[in-house]
Amino acid sequence: MKILLIGATGLLGNAVAKELEGKHEIIRAARHNADVEVDITKPDSIKRMFEQVGKVDAVISATGHAHFGALEEITPELNEESIESKLKGQVNLVLLGMDHVNDDGSFTLTTGVIMDEPILHGASSAMANGAVKSFAKSAAIEMPRGIRINSVSGTVFQESPEGLRAYFPGFDPIPVSKAALAFRKSVEGAQTGQSYEIY
Amino acid sequence: MKILLIGATGLLGNAVAKELEGKHEIIRAARHNADVEVDITKPDSIKRMFEQVGKVDAVISATGHAHFGALEEITPELNEESIESKLKGQVNLVLLGMDHVNDDGSFTLTTGVIMDEPILHGASSAMANGAVKSFAKSAAIEMPRGIRINSVSGTVFQESPEGLRAYFPGFDPIPVSKAALAFRKSVEGAQTGQSYEIY
Repeated sequence: MKILLIGATGLLGNAVAKELEGKHEIIRAARHNADVEVDITKPDSIKRMFEQVGKVDAVISATGHAHFGALEEITPELNEESIESKLKGQVNLVLLGMDHVNDDGSFTLTTGVIMDEPILHGASSAMANGAVKSFAKSAAIEMPRGIRINSVSGTVFQESPEGLRAYFPGFDPIPVSKAALAFRKSVEGAQTGQSYEIY
Repeated sequence: MKILLIGATGLLGNAVAKELEGKHEIIRAARHNADVEVDITKPDSIKRMFEQVGKVDAVISATGHAHFGALEEITPELNEESIESKLKGQVNLVLLGMDHVNDDGSFTLTTGVIMDEPILHGASSAMANGAVKSFAKSAAIEMPRGIRINSVSGTVFQESPEGLRAYFPGFDPIPVSKAALAFRKSVEGAQTGQSYEIY
């Protein structure tokens, strides 16, 4: 399959590429240092990426910035960071990319454990995760031409920086390669509307 | 208790007011024809509302517009309608209203069944619902001064217009008064971080 992987240069994106590259053609997209440059917060940039890449069999989003910060200090403006990137960025990949995906292709988006198990400073990011999960579940019943859509929710990774892992006390970190498996399940499997929770 | 009810003029808001007005002081907010006028898509309008109303014991949102339409016809711009109103409008009521709620007060937001049971044309609205549910669940663990936050997810109402009910084939419509009960549970009860699902 020809797979467009957005966020290919990140920790998760790298692991997803490693999991899939033996068997598939991977087109890496990221803000910089990738086959295709894209800024998912800009619809025009998403459109340009799809025009550049042409038709693909699968679109994987392993990206999305979210604001982390104490609830009492989250302003509407700071919350907008999560909305623009993790939420709208990923949803717009689907809205603008649908026509560029071959029949029976797929979309796989990324959410995260904190929508199910809240952590301090995580409300804005959890909001974006919940939005993406519900969008994927709902969009699945209307996808044209046999196209499927799932989301993957991973917990904190063993390879995450220590400063990040400190926000997840008592959470059992997984190897990022385990989260990457769920993307293979989504791309090569036949399910749709699922939220794969790898906790 | 002094309760600020946003969306007081709608079907759900009216039922919530009826459920609570015997026992509490209700301040009705809506775009027009209410004690206080507010447009939740505008942070400045939310701020003005809270300044006008002063301290309250509970904030209830029974409002939020979302875009309904076929998935293939949802553009980023149309999706923005759901983000601006049902999603950000409600989240901003919390972010901007927190300081105006008395100790041990509460927020209660509104989501909806289609995040759990998708319907045709519902992807954008489901996205907003999932965001609000996850935000409330996550914000609950960081609310200051004993303030609680819950969300209420109702199914379609017996009193909903027939044109709307047609989008919910096989769903069992509830009386709107039953959904209103969940708002009383949230306001007068002691739970937090809950999604009350009235299906």
